[in-house]
Amino acid sequence: MTRVVQKFGGTSLADIEKIRNAACHVQRAVNAGNEVAVVVSAMAGTTSKLVSWAREISALQDAPEYDAVVASGEQVTAGLMAMAIQALGIPARSWLAWQLPILTDDVHGKAHIESIDTTEIVQRLTAGEVAVIPGFQGVSHRNRLTTLGRGGSDASAVALAAALHADLCNIYTDVDGVYTSDPHIVTKARKLDKITYEEMLEMASLGANVLQGRAAELAMRHNVVVQVLSAFDNLPGTQLVGEDVIVEQRVVSGIAYSRDEAKITLTGIPDRPGIAASIFGPLSEASVNVDMIVQNASDDGASADLTFTVGKVDLARATEVIGQAQDILEYQELLSDSNVVKVSVIGVGMRTHAGVATKMFKTLADKGINIQVISTSEIKVSVLIAEEYTELALRSLHTAYDLDEE
Amino acid sequence: MTRVVQKFGGTSLADIEKIRNAACHVQRAVNAGNEVAVVVSAMAGTTSKLVSWAREISALQDAPEYDAVVASGEQVTAGLMAMAIQALGIPARSWLAWQLPILTDDVHGKAHIESIDTTEIVQRLTAGEVAVIPGFQGVSHRNRLTTLGRGGSDASAVALAAALHADLCNIYTDVDGVYTSDPHIVTKARKLDKITYEEMLEMASLGANVLQGRAAELAMRHNVVVQVLSAFDNLPGTQLVGEDVIVEQRVVSGIAYSRDEAKITLTGIPDRPGIAASIFGPLSEASVNVDMIVQNASDDGASADLTFTVGKVDLARATEVIGQAQDILEYQELLSDSNVVKVSVIGVGMRTHAGVATKMFKTLADKGINIQVISTSEIKVSVLIAEEYTELALRSLHTAYDLDEE
Repeated sequence: MTRVVQKFGGTSLADIEKIRNAACHVQRAVNAGNEVAVVVSAMAGTTSKLVSWAREISALQDAPEYDAVVASGEQVTAGLMAMAIQALGIPARSWLAWQLPILTDDVHGKAHIESIDTTEIVQRLTAGEVAVIPGFQGVSHRNRLTTLGRGGSDASAVALAAALHADLCNIYTDVDGVYTSDPHIVTKARKLDKITYEEMLEMASLGANVLQGRAAELAMRHNVVVQVLSAFDNLPGTQLVGEDVIVEQRVVSGIAYSRDEAKITLTGIPDRPGIAASIFGPLSEASVNVDMIVQNASDDGASADLTFTVGKVDLARATEVIGQAQDILEYQELLSDSNVVKVSVIGVGMRTHAGVATKMFKTLADKGINIQVISTSEIKVSVLIAEEYTELALRSLHTAYDLDEE
Repeated sequence: MTRVVQKFGGTSLADIEKIRNAACHVQRAVNAGNEVAVVVSAMAGTTSKLVSWAREISALQDAPEYDAVVASGEQVTAGLMAMAIQALGIPARSWLAWQLPILTDDVHGKAHIESIDTTEIVQRLTAGEVAVIPGFQGVSHRNRLTTLGRGGSDASAVALAAALHADLCNIYTDVDGVYTSDPHIVTKARKLDKITYEEMLEMASLGANVLQGRAAELAMRHNVVVQVLSAFDNLPGTQLVGEDVIVEQRVVSGIAYSRDEAKITLTGIPDRPGIAASIFGPLSEASVNVDMIVQNASDDGASADLTFTVGKVDLARATEVIGQAQDILEYQELLSDSNVVKVSVIGVGMRTHAGVATKMFKTLADKGINIQVISTSEIKVSVLIAEEYTELALRSLHTAYDLDEE
């Protein structure tokens, strides 16, 4: 007997017809002899509407009340989905977070799941009943409803799969899997059959919102086999698995990009100990995350230029914070540029293959693309380039690493 | 210290602005030194939408799932109302049915409240915190959400007021009280300051949906002082009280009517024992409620005519059931008429004053209105007349019993 968790996103449950369609996926899994637990998001648009009501009522929302309001969307789809499955002649019932319970910490609005009591649903699953669980919600130790933050239903599904020791966690969404690059730009992009958890985490920006980052982390930690696939056909998608499962290792699995970065350069900063801390300390206090950092000594040897990237949404705040501290930081000029894009080459194969970064730099140089900042991790090389080169860079790299569809 | 329950209906919570307006009623009560518990309906239209989704999914809905779906509307307004009260600087929190709990039987869709655990909210109320409770919902002994049936939020409010030993239960709605007759027809109708529970029960059809019948019953049983008033002004409404509280007793408190009745006459039925049971038995089995009943012996003495009323919606089913049993019932003819209206004169004063019925019959006769069926109870006289006389009958009776506004 195989045990499967099936998770349906909001676009897959946007109306009654789509809920019925989702129930057919459940039916197929049941008919194939699986024990099935279902996790549902709210109908597309519902959570946004509830959030906007809460914001309209009060600028400073009480977090537990906010959660009581926004958690209601998943309660509705859980009940409707249970009915839709029953209508196909299959026993089913909904289990709200407080009924299991799904216990979380009490960080309302972005709670973390601590435990899921599966005693009762395991009994029902083995007896052939489908369990339908609202995603996104939990209950705190104080017995109040909590929510896991945007996209939290993916995390609910993976956590449930881990708690149930499920063999597979299918995440049904409106894309059919994870691609080697954004198919809207790189027409030769291929769908990947398998991808490692770590690559998925790095590729989070690929094929927007394929899988929420925290869910990928949870899957990695608990070794849950996750499949991302389309709710609107019946084809295999992309499986997230451990590195050991991917036998034929590719060196590079995908080319990702992010337009969400902005670059800040401080020229002529004094070359003395503690200067980096005095710049990044205030940014961190202002909740500005800094990503790539490069420091170059300038010609005179006594001063240096510092370049780093922040989120585009944080650029104004970052320049304000640094501007206020000019007398302490003693920089000459503050330059900022938001017409940049971060392009990343990702693959666990990099650990054992040399020359990946070199190939990237050479490919971009051949196309006349200037690299502004470089950063690397164990399985990723990222460069910051002018935004206008985005498409050219992605397509060239995709070809250079032999990722093009044949 | 006075303890007050305030209940707001769906039209009083239809949008964020109206929720804020309702919160102002709460604020006024708090500022006047009251302990306040609030019961909320779902936003107008929400429950109907949820019900229609459930119906669309499946003709045979699973009642517990149906309840999980439709109970969500009150959860949303409870959270929003708590936030709106907090935004006015008053401590508040929502208590969902399962959090108190509000324990009900497990008759899903029309559950009855068995008990409300008020231990925790009483502590909070005395500490100055407002408790916001979703109406309409409860939790069964099996730990599943239940709903109390349409209009159940009124019952929630009265049951909570009883459990809290509240001094007053204010039902805020979109009408400003209970009138001596329908003000749309009888322009001289007056708003009543006070009315007895029993009169309210009989007048349920007056001023459509002023208060749900079960709530009036509960109030009577637990002696809860209920006030029905408008959410959109700040004026006193109509108080429901015990008979002992109304010192200056009116003989007649109001003239009610119902267009929901239809008349069935069976002619020439054999005049033998058991014939009534053989007619009303099958109707009862078909869930057709029979209201007024009159039997007249016919000229020959061996047979009789039987006239009774059923709900207009049940007329087709009733004639079908009786038609199928013609060989057993041996009636000559089945006549039906749905162009009828039931007009009732209501007042606890009838118990001690004679001549109320006589005045009614005489008033109608003077206007040339023929009475088709009569039925009476301790505090009510009802007659069935042709529908076209509705307005004339109501206005004439209203004047005859000295109810007209001066």
